[in-house]
Amino acid sequence: MREVRLSDVDDIARGAAILGTGGGGDPYVGKLLAEAAVEKHGPVPVVNIADVPPDAVVVPISSMGAPTVGTEKLPSGREAVTALRALERVMGTRATHLVPIEIGGVNSVIPIAAAAETGLPLVDGDAMGRAFPEAHMVLPTLIGVSCTPMVIVDDKGNTMVLDTVTNQYAERFARAVCTEAGCSVVTADTVLIGKQLRDGLVDGTLSLARKLGRTVRLADEPVASAAALLDGRLLITGKVTDVDRATTGGFARGQARIEGIGAYRGVRMRLSFQNEHLLAERDGEVVTSTPDLICVLDNETGEPVTTEGMRYGNRVAVLGVPCDSRWTTPEGLRLTGPRAFGYDHDYVPITGGTK
Amino acid sequence: MREVRLSDVDDIARGAAILGTGGGGDPYVGKLLAEAAVEKHGPVPVVNIADVPPDAVVVPISSMGAPTVGTEKLPSGREAVTALRALERVMGTRATHLVPIEIGGVNSVIPIAAAAETGLPLVDGDAMGRAFPEAHMVLPTLIGVSCTPMVIVDDKGNTMVLDTVTNQYAERFARAVCTEAGCSVVTADTVLIGKQLRDGLVDGTLSLARKLGRTVRLADEPVASAAALLDGRLLITGKVTDVDRATTGGFARGQARIEGIGAYRGVRMRLSFQNEHLLAERDGEVVTSTPDLICVLDNETGEPVTTEGMRYGNRVAVLGVPCDSRWTTPEGLRLTGPRAFGYDHDYVPITGGTK
Repeated sequence: MREVRLSDVDDIARGAAILGTGGGGDPYVGKLLAEAAVEKHGPVPVVNIADVPPDAVVVPISSMGAPTVGTEKLPSGREAVTALRALERVMGTRATHLVPIEIGGVNSVIPIAAAAETGLPLVDGDAMGRAFPEAHMVLPTLIGVSCTPMVIVDDKGNTMVLDTVTNQYAERFARAVCTEAGCSVVTADTVLIGKQLRDGLVDGTLSLARKLGRTVRLADEPVASAAALLDGRLLITGKVTDVDRATTGGFARGQARIEGIGAYRGVRMRLSFQNEHLLAERDGEVVTSTPDLICVLDNETGEPVTTEGMRYGNRVAVLGVPCDSRWTTPEGLRLTGPRAFGYDHDYVPITGGTK
Repeated sequence: MREVRLSDVDDIARGAAILGTGGGGDPYVGKLLAEAAVEKHGPVPVVNIADVPPDAVVVPISSMGAPTVGTEKLPSGREAVTALRALERVMGTRATHLVPIEIGGVNSVIPIAAAAETGLPLVDGDAMGRAFPEAHMVLPTLIGVSCTPMVIVDDKGNTMVLDTVTNQYAERFARAVCTEAGCSVVTADTVLIGKQLRDGLVDGTLSLARKLGRTVRLADEPVASAAALLDGRLLITGKVTDVDRATTGGFARGQARIEGIGAYRGVRMRLSFQNEHLLAERDGEVVTSTPDLICVLDNETGEPVTTEGMRYGNRVAVLGVPCDSRWTTPEGLRLTGPRAFGYDHDYVPITGGTK
């Protein structure tokens, strides 16, 4: 992938929303901003990790907040560039590349818009290989890279710079500020230099998102094609019978219940989420857990179903998709395994399901 | 007053705790820090507002939080200098003077410790002429001076820099961060240049605090002497019969009830506070309200009684003391009158009581 063209944005947003496991925010508004920016400024150059110079200054730009709020409280479009410029002032150096912090929903397209507006190239990767709800849940934490300085910008023009002693504190303070700002802010943080990208990013996820989004749009059997592309397992197809959702502590938290249809008649699934889907239990047994991906798709169209968009009656397919292998190391699981989210359960590899 | 000597710190802390109207935090730990710093580095030079050069860079250093927490969660002593240095980096210039943001409790002595440690002189004044619970409730807000850049430092070494579009936003975000940090942080903010001091500060309040503290310590009738010095009115002497206090939203909020003794037998008073005492009602009628000062003293010793230290059975005298006249202008009342704290009451000048 050499560049993001106007026609790519929609596919990237769709694919990233699937990889975002229900979180990362509804990409719709972000997609419009990115499309407008690419239309105005032209295609965004994309660089492979292997081609980024070792001294490059690579800045992730993302939004933080509860997706339930993001659908109603719209970004102004200026925040990303404001955050980037403020971070550059704090660092005393200019960014050379931008990159998504996660390949999920709105956070896959915000960097496209920012790259188009600033003329900076985008690195083909992200810091999670999926979406996670908390700022410190990134591969850079595993290699000792600080999330701070972190710049936070809200829609009113308020700006905050955090400098914390751990990445967990960065998450805590950023979340407090985000909540006070109405659960929706844009951040620039977790700066990587070029030689850290191999260990600090998952390679090629922007390309993967585009390919996935295109596959779902064009395939005759979108769900099966998506599963094949992602090496995922189909855990159930069914009907959403209940969604219990609350926006608390700056997150959209809750559970959804699914009753199987077709070959899955009589099977019940419970999904637990905190912005992202984190646990999938089938008939009371955990069959996929964070950090592996739990992707919920519309059973007909393969379109991603977000945790905030899930409704009673949705016909969905749930895929279990293996995460980047660095997440299932002991250090990775300490940061993003089920217990990191308060679930009293160890990580279990994807169990059962069909290829 | 030319300097703060070791022997002055205790009097300043006592006097400021009285002027702090029950808030500003228990000065005990701050006093020990200030005494240790003055003992180590020598007396702190004090400069009158009239003698500060017009281009001076005057930095208020203070703590923020709930006094109920401040009595248990102790500052490390490093936070003030850390905050000052971080603010200087953001401003791109060095501070020439320090000043208390409020003349209340711990915030009157933290700047003494910081001045001793940095060798900077202290300006004889403060930005309120009392204590108020919220960061934007300062005279600089009335003259259009921004509270930001505001540096916030916690006891773990986490640092945050706020840059907000209004001073109210600075308060909101700082309070959110403060609450997340455990309700106790140190801030450097609301920088004034020398020529703004006349309008942005209340003149001579450090000297006043020392004089008041000394008067209470030495006088035969401490309460009457304090009242005379402050041009205050005695509203009641009585016994605390009930204190209803909760630490919510980063503040110590509540009410206290007092039953009159001696000449005030049969009279009842209710005090409402949010860190500071804000409303005094005598037999159901408001007799003193913010921004005027409601000072609660031990009826025997004249020692200040803080809102977090007030207990059932305390014998107290309550004084109503006129505030700086800039607070009773329409703009001043909008910022610090009873309605600014959610009380459904207009400002009433001090009513009744005895000189």
